[in-house]
Amino acid sequence: MCPVFQDVHVMIFIGFGFLMTFLKRYGFSSVGINLLLAAFGLQWGLLLQNIWHMHDGKIRVSIEKMINADFSTATVLISFGAVLGKTSPVQLLIMTLLEITIFCINEHLVVEILNVSDVGASMTIHAFGAYFGLAVARVLYRPGLRNGHENEGSVYHSDLFAMIGTVYLWMFWPSFNSAIAEPGDPQLRAVINTYFSLAACALAAYATSSLVEKKGKLDMVHIQNATLAGGVAVGTCADMDIQPFGAMAIGITAGVISTVGFKFLTPILASKLGIQDTCGVHNLHGMPGILGGLAGILAAALGKKDGVSPGYQACGLASSLGFALVGGLITGLIMKIPFWGQPPDQNCFDDSIFWEVQIGKERPLKSIRTQCKLFWTNRNYMLSQELRLNHFD
Amino acid sequence: MCPVFQDVHVMIFIGFGFLMTFLKRYGFSSVGINLLLAAFGLQWGLLLQNIWHMHDGKIRVSIEKMINADFSTATVLISFGAVLGKTSPVQLLIMTLLEITIFCINEHLVVEILNVSDVGASMTIHAFGAYFGLAVARVLYRPGLRNGHENEGSVYHSDLFAMIGTVYLWMFWPSFNSAIAEPGDPQLRAVINTYFSLAACALAAYATSSLVEKKGKLDMVHIQNATLAGGVAVGTCADMDIQPFGAMAIGITAGVISTVGFKFLTPILASKLGIQDTCGVHNLHGMPGILGGLAGILAAALGKKDGVSPGYQACGLASSLGFALVGGLITGLIMKIPFWGQPPDQNCFDDSIFWEVQIGKERPLKSIRTQCKLFWTNRNYMLSQELRLNHFD
Amino acid sequence: MCPVFQDVHVMIFIGFGFLMTFLKRYGFSSVGINLLLAAFGLQWGLLLQNIWHMHDGKIRVSIEKMINADFSTATVLISFGAVLGKTSPVQLLIMTLLEITIFCINEHLVVEILNVSDVGASMTIHAFGAYFGLAVARVLYRPGLRNGHENEGSVYHSDLFAMIGTVYLWMFWPSFNSAIAEPGDPQLRAVINTYFSLAACALAAYATSSLVEKKGKLDMVHIQNATLAGGVAVGTCADMDIQPFGAMAIGITAGVISTVGFKFLTPILASKLGIQDTCGVHNLHGMPGILGGLAGILAAALGKKDGVSPGYQACGLASSLGFALVGGLITGLIMKIPFWGQPPDQNCFDDSIFWEVQIGKERPLKSIRTQCKLFWTNRNYMLSQELRLNHFD
Repeated sequence: MCPVFQDVHVMIFIGFGFLMTFLKRYGFSSVGINLLLAAFGLQWGLLLQNIWHMHDGKIRVSIEKMINADFSTATVLISFGAVLGKTSPVQLLIMTLLEITIFCINEHLVVEILNVSDVGASMTIHAFGAYFGLAVARVLYRPGLRNGHENEGSVYHSDLFAMIGTVYLWMFWPSFNSAIAEPGDPQLRAVINTYFSLAACALAAYATSSLVEKKGKLDMVHIQNATLAGGVAVGTCADMDIQPFGAMAIGITAGVISTVGFKFLTPILASKLGIQDTCGVHNLHGMPGILGGLAGILAAALGKKDGVSPGYQACGLASSLGFALVGGLITGLIMKIPFWGQPPDQNCFDDSIFWEVQIGKERPLKSIRTQCKLFWTNRNYMLSQELRLNHFD
Repeated sequence: MCPVFQDVHVMIFIGFGFLMTFLKRYGFSSVGINLLLAAFGLQWGLLLQNIWHMHDGKIRVSIEKMINADFSTATVLISFGAVLGKTSPVQLLIMTLLEITIFCINEHLVVEILNVSDVGASMTIHAFGAYFGLAVARVLYRPGLRNGHENEGSVYHSDLFAMIGTVYLWMFWPSFNSAIAEPGDPQLRAVINTYFSLAACALAAYATSSLVEKKGKLDMVHIQNATLAGGVAVGTCADMDIQPFGAMAIGITAGVISTVGFKFLTPILASKLGIQDTCGVHNLHGMPGILGGLAGILAAALGKKDGVSPGYQACGLASSLGFALVGGLITGLIMKIPFWGQPPDQNCFDDSIFWEVQIGKERPLKSIRTQCKLFWTNRNYMLSQELRLNHFD
Repeated sequence: MCPVFQDVHVMIFIGFGFLMTFLKRYGFSSVGINLLLAAFGLQWGLLLQNIWHMHDGKIRVSIEKMINADFSTATVLISFGAVLGKTSPVQLLIMTLLEITIFCINEHLVVEILNVSDVGASMTIHAFGAYFGLAVARVLYRPGLRNGHENEGSVYHSDLFAMIGTVYLWMFWPSFNSAIAEPGDPQLRAVINTYFSLAACALAAYATSSLVEKKGKLDMVHIQNATLAGGVAVGTCADMDIQPFGAMAIGITAGVISTVGFKFLTPILASKLGIQDTCGVHNLHGMPGILGGLAGILAAALGKKDGVSPGYQACGLASSLGFALVGGLITGLIMKIPFWGQPPDQNCFDDSIFWEVQIGKERPLKSIRTQCKLFWTNRNYMLSQELRLNHFD
């Protein structure tokens, strides 16, 4: 089976799925709903992308079309990150349906009609998916979560599960950016540029995280996300002749912007603009996606790829952002209709509203008696130790 | 290195290994004994499958033969799922030895002599492995576990580890079903049919899980397993010309059957027939494997592949089931001989009987004093707060 | 993208990263600092390895050079295992810089000048990295940790995370040993020899672990590490004509030596020689690496590969050990300069000194009142139950 397709497949199902398991009580939904949306989205994407190109009333499926179907689901999974924990599976299936439809229209316009170069899809997937999700999140704003939620945080092991997602995305991003590149030199260039951008970005993310945190510590949220921003940002010009130096400059900028965004911008978006971005997709996909689009305009202006014009590149970026924001607002309004089983504020970020969670089995009722007995034994023991213990006080 | 071989290798060692880590106290054995059995089984399988085809007294090893060796271990790992938690490593090594031997005989008969088409091995691996394991489980029936065992369940994080296995199996199943297909069109067809079957099956499993559970919730057991049933069921006719529609019909049927099996059939098998199927292999490999065999008979009757006859396909299914049941009963009787270090009922589903588990290190003895001191401080604090607290009562 | 490169990449980032997450409170650093060092090291390695072969002042990057860059980081990640938990990120970045420099010198000498055959790099990567790390650990000896540290151990889930690393390394080691082999027969031979060595080694490690532990139990430390020693030890002669029998003999020897080393040698190294080897790299990379070098000398003497002389092979082993020990001592002395933010003894093996760890979020302060209330309710309940409970005492 085609290794590039497999790499992209791993990014979609393991990468995105586990990246979102950082929430302490939302791991089932992160990886489980990710699988549901991706399995649904790739069928819908395959249908939509090919319904106009049928042969004798049939769609001819190929590995390349399966890669494109995976790509179309990626937009949904990015938007999912913005609304993670605050939406029901039914809402998310509706979002999948609408977002992939709008994505296909925008991609057709940008890539086929405007002939824009976006091999790693910084604009058409990452920026599009992020701003679509942010628009949805804005419409679904929950004032009740203004002061946070006790489950909106990680625990030690959930952060390690998320690192599985991070590392897989990091390792296979060169395949993502080169998957639909022209075979031969352009594909190899896309691999190598992405590789350098990611390596430089990772160092920049570590350095910036250490600079903005107290006592020079590192923050797991930054490492899980900002190390990947270089892959997003180099997407548009991955197959252009930007040289390792260009790729690394893009990567470093992306790593810094992304980390700073997590630290300072995300809280402002939530408090001032009412955009509660659970995973910080604005920092990982939004700003780096725009950076990628801008880098593509610059590279086109410098003639780094034949037949690419800076004007059309700029149109591609504007189109992606426009479709994302308008599409996201409309989709958000449809998702807001109170039929779709939205979780109430207090059940947000909690798997147990949609999943059978085996909490009961961990602490069976019969053990209360045992606990009481244990307590009593301890209490008597401690009373007998009271004098000795008082020495420590 | 050959990517298809690597994909199958990942399914055997990561996929099967982590799929079984769902038990709260049996993760070491799941992934560790899985590695032991697979490492042993692939050597034994390689020897047995090639001992009749030696050149100058030597076996010529190739990637294809290594894929076949991995396949032969898959049967053992499926059967392992049925007896998980209730057997010792020595028992399982004996099972590996016998099961691979019987598998090789059946596969030789079915594939070489009867010329049956079973490219993804729905019959010769999945149905065979499942019914072999169920027959062993029947012989090893433990009346003491009739009412369950406190460790026979999952905790939150163990279910997430199991999802690593599920997602890897789901992603790489197209490689499994196409690994030994004829290169070119048949191989590509096997990839695409399996891809569609899995995508449709995943949706069916989610929908069915939500329908059969209280309040429309999802059950992690169904998601971990039933989403994969489409890969099993499409195996036999993966390389046949069944079109995406056919593949998806098979996938949907498998997803529904598998989920319903977990919900309603597994408890009945345990209580009425004395078959305690820990991982529910009957639902993931047994029934979908038979479904795959039946679909192959139908596809052969409809002429979807040249040179394949429905009668011989039916013989292949019957042979696989017959060898599995008889072989499993005999193997179970040998495994029941009380020499092999079987765990007593109360130590079932517990790693600590076969592994050095670091429980002691988590709660060192010296901290009891600290705990007492902490308790006393709290107690005094709480006494001083008593009046205020009484306001809440 | 090239599958062999991807496999090696997975070994470096997932394999080494997760293998070291076994420590109960050091998972963030294991996988996070692993990513940092590897992302830094591959850039430095790529620069150093190619600075002498520039074309028109430019380095020509290729997949093969990216594989070599990954290889050069492997030495650092091996050494990282020896000093895991006792060093700061800054110290480790300095180590990366120096170790890769020394590695490049030794590799150039051994492979280019002495024309030594070391396709899987038993000597130049594994033995070199291990003894380099042990020399550093010797210089950084901490008498305060002579009696161990309460965090220097695993918990149940951290051992499962480590198994992710183990299984990935195990599965992809054939790619590691064949990555730079001559395409065609030698490459296939390297794959197959490594496959057999690993399979035999895994069985030997399980058997030996069970033999040396109390009551025949298995120890997770042995399974996580010693199962991989066969991949290390077969490295030098992986592409030689040693036949499966030779590969398996090497694998079995490595599995036994490695397990016995963990059980008996590591405690002696720590207590007698002042070498505190956190991950036991001496057992996984050190001794099996030397074994690989010796097997290569023997294979050369038996004429298993054309143009390879036992004398030069011996020189290659001696050179690798010499550069490792001297280089490690010098590097250790530089790392000992008290500028680099070394953690004090009591903060060793603890992520919270370098990472923002979300302990606070798990038990927010506001819940103390809730806890008190709960305690009080329980206390009153228990007092009312006192008579009944006394029946149990």
